[in-house]
Amino acid sequence: MIIMGLDPGLAIVGYSFIEKKGNSYKAIEYGAITTEAKMPTSLRLEHIHREMLSLIDAFQPEELAIEELFFNKNVKTAIAVAQARGVEILSAQLKGLPIYEYTPLQVKQGLVGYGRADKKQIQHMVKILLNLPKVPKPDDVADALAIALTHGHTGRFKDQYLME
Amino acid sequence: MIIMGLDPGLAIVGYSFIEKKGNSYKAIEYGAITTEAKMPTSLRLEHIHREMLSLIDAFQPEELAIEELFFNKNVKTAIAVAQARGVEILSAQLKGLPIYEYTPLQVKQGLVGYGRADKKQIQHMVKILLNLPKVPKPDDVADALAIALTHGHTGRFKDQYLME
Repeated sequence: MIIMGLDPGLAIVGYSFIEKKGNSYKAIEYGAITTEAKMPTSLRLEHIHREMLSLIDAFQPEELAIEELFFNKNVKTAIAVAQARGVEILSAQLKGLPIYEYTPLQVKQGLVGYGRADKKQIQHMVKILLNLPKVPKPDDVADALAIALTHGHTGRFKDQYLME
Repeated sequence: MIIMGLDPGLAIVGYSFIEKKGNSYKAIEYGAITTEAKMPTSLRLEHIHREMLSLIDAFQPEELAIEELFFNKNVKTAIAVAQARGVEILSAQLKGLPIYEYTPLQVKQGLVGYGRADKKQIQHMVKILLNLPKVPKPDDVADALAIALTHGHTGRFKDQYLME
């Protein structure tokens, strides 16, 4: 099964495609859709939409795992990113992908088994589980891989959760 | 010229189509796209997207005027509405509509000439300018008409602004 992972954003959208075979995972593709701050929002959203459709066509994932937005401070930034996330969800929906959402806490628990794991621990697990030569950059790409892996682990995660 | 006005939202998206002829305005159509809270977000966004495309096809507006989001308190609500607003902007963008944004303050100044005007004054002006038998309900629909009228008045608004 091919899982698409997405770290939502407006300036940088981290994406990943991983293949799950039994309990092992293989990274098929990963990278970032980027848009420039000087472009009008409408054009940035259109660019993200078209890139999303192309990526889904190219890699034919069966499911999308996307990170939930978590904001505490800057509402203006939250609104800008949420607008893009709406477009990202729509794009997957129009391609018929089931969509699963995970909180940052669920990613930490799912990959490291510890809700207070830091970014480096998550990135280390991404590198190990996918047998990558190094941690992908920028962080948004590593996050997109982490989300996809979390979804692949969901069964295990659920058990862990129930056992707590 | 036909102007589309939009009061963005997820549960209720107020929309309007008005025709501007010289200095007078005619309401061509107005109403609301609604989605139920029990539906998954992805389906709600898809419904809004498809309705937006149908409305634009049906009424062939030349420009879209949409209200800027203004949130101070509930970030969770802000994120949900912003996701829908992103989809609404994308839908207009895919139909090639130029998109103009107005703040609530600009709507008040544009229609009533007074930034502290209350909702009733705005609705009264909408009713008068469009020669409607009564104020359209819900408020989201009246707001969508107010936004479209504000855009129609933009020239006047700009002059006023410069004169202050």
